[in-house]
Amino acid sequence: MLFDSEEVMKILIIHAHPEPQSFCTAMKNTAVETFQELGHDVQVSDLYEMGWNPVASANDFQVRSQPDYLVYALEQRESYKNGKMAPDIQSEIDKLKWCDVLIFNFPMYWFSVPAILKGWIDRVLISGYCYGGKRFYDQGGLKGKRGMLSFTLGGREHMFGEDKIHGEMETMLQPLLRGTMAYVGLSVLPPFIGWHVPYISDAERHLMLEKYRNYLTHLDDLEPLKFPSLDDFDEQMIPKK
Amino acid sequence: MLFDSEEVMKILIIHAHPEPQSFCTAMKNTAVETFQELGHDVQVSDLYEMGWNPVASANDFQVRSQPDYLVYALEQRESYKNGKMAPDIQSEIDKLKWCDVLIFNFPMYWFSVPAILKGWIDRVLISGYCYGGKRFYDQGGLKGKRGMLSFTLGGREHMFGEDKIHGEMETMLQPLLRGTMAYVGLSVLPPFIGWHVPYISDAERHLMLEKYRNYLTHLDDLEPLKFPSLDDFDEQMIPKK
Repeated sequence: MLFDSEEVMKILIIHAHPEPQSFCTAMKNTAVETFQELGHDVQVSDLYEMGWNPVASANDFQVRSQPDYLVYALEQRESYKNGKMAPDIQSEIDKLKWCDVLIFNFPMYWFSVPAILKGWIDRVLISGYCYGGKRFYDQGGLKGKRGMLSFTLGGREHMFGEDKIHGEMETMLQPLLRGTMAYVGLSVLPPFIGWHVPYISDAERHLMLEKYRNYLTHLDDLEPLKFPSLDDFDEQMIPKK
Repeated sequence: MLFDSEEVMKILIIHAHPEPQSFCTAMKNTAVETFQELGHDVQVSDLYEMGWNPVASANDFQVRSQPDYLVYALEQRESYKNGKMAPDIQSEIDKLKWCDVLIFNFPMYWFSVPAILKGWIDRVLISGYCYGGKRFYDQGGLKGKRGMLSFTLGGREHMFGEDKIHGEMETMLQPLLRGTMAYVGLSVLPPFIGWHVPYISDAERHLMLEKYRNYLTHLDDLEPLKFPSLDDFDEQMIPKK
């Protein structure tokens, strides 16, 4: 067992599907039920339901450090430090601080997350808390927490892999797994993938939800993915050997 | 020369930066000037200026084929066929049909595009025109057009590569280069990358704009990136050999 969750875990699910009856939403519901049955605490940010604004802009800061020229990451740091972040962002940062496990639950759009979820990443994973200076990857601000992708797609498993039509799924996921979750210091668990969802039978969907329930029940047994450590690089980010 | 642009080219630039004085915006302006000086036609969708809505939702369709359950790609096909697409999307589709070359110009956020541009991809690259059925990759709906990424980032070139801290830049770009641009049939040109932009001198920025101007002037000499052909796969997308 890699993590010991005898204690209560705090789970934050960021959910982003426009159809409340979708299978993807059923996955989110299954996760909530499963974690609660295990005695864990769960919060969900249902981005469509919340009417989440995904557009990073000057409006995200109640006071501007540089009013005449927007450097988004700089204003993030200043607003965070001074408690002047837009309330919708601050509320998500509070949930992020609270959680032990962060799950992105979404339908894959263009081999990535839907824009509404990309805008959660852009606006909530702020410089000054999640990363900044030399604090990234295994020194990232969310060190000690775990992260996981859980998503549905139309494609089939055999379409991914070396020499397959779409190439490796892991390659397609690098900006999310490595460039986002690992970058902010999360221990990144292997993703749970709902393959071919629009085309499968009800029975297959039920089986998939059971598989997901089982996956989440044994979260502590999942070995995090491997990413580079800053220890292997010098101050200029040049490999030490 | 791979393409022959003795004739007038039609260029569509999708620009997505929240700061009009940014270097990224200067790159967009340089592109407009360069193409116009060469006698080509240019249209720009400046997503921040337009107040572009990036959130794919049921509101994108003036009439619903399935009012009780949203299947986004299905409604795209139906609305497109029946001329019932939301006007903001239809207007972008018209530009897309018009153009010979599509350029995404953006600051890299989380090794990908900002949410506002992801939402242009999600909403405008519709099923029924850009892809659908067996029409994807070299059979995609935008076959015959070219696509290119042009972006700025804080990172330095030496941070990318095998065994480097972020891994290969090309890997990080797969969802955009392969999973989006190549997927819809575009001939994907090598990206133009503005490295380390927030930290370089004015002189270096001017040099970079000159380099960009030169890059765009010789667009016809750029060899498109290589991606798989559907000819190499059977009906089930299994490699033929």
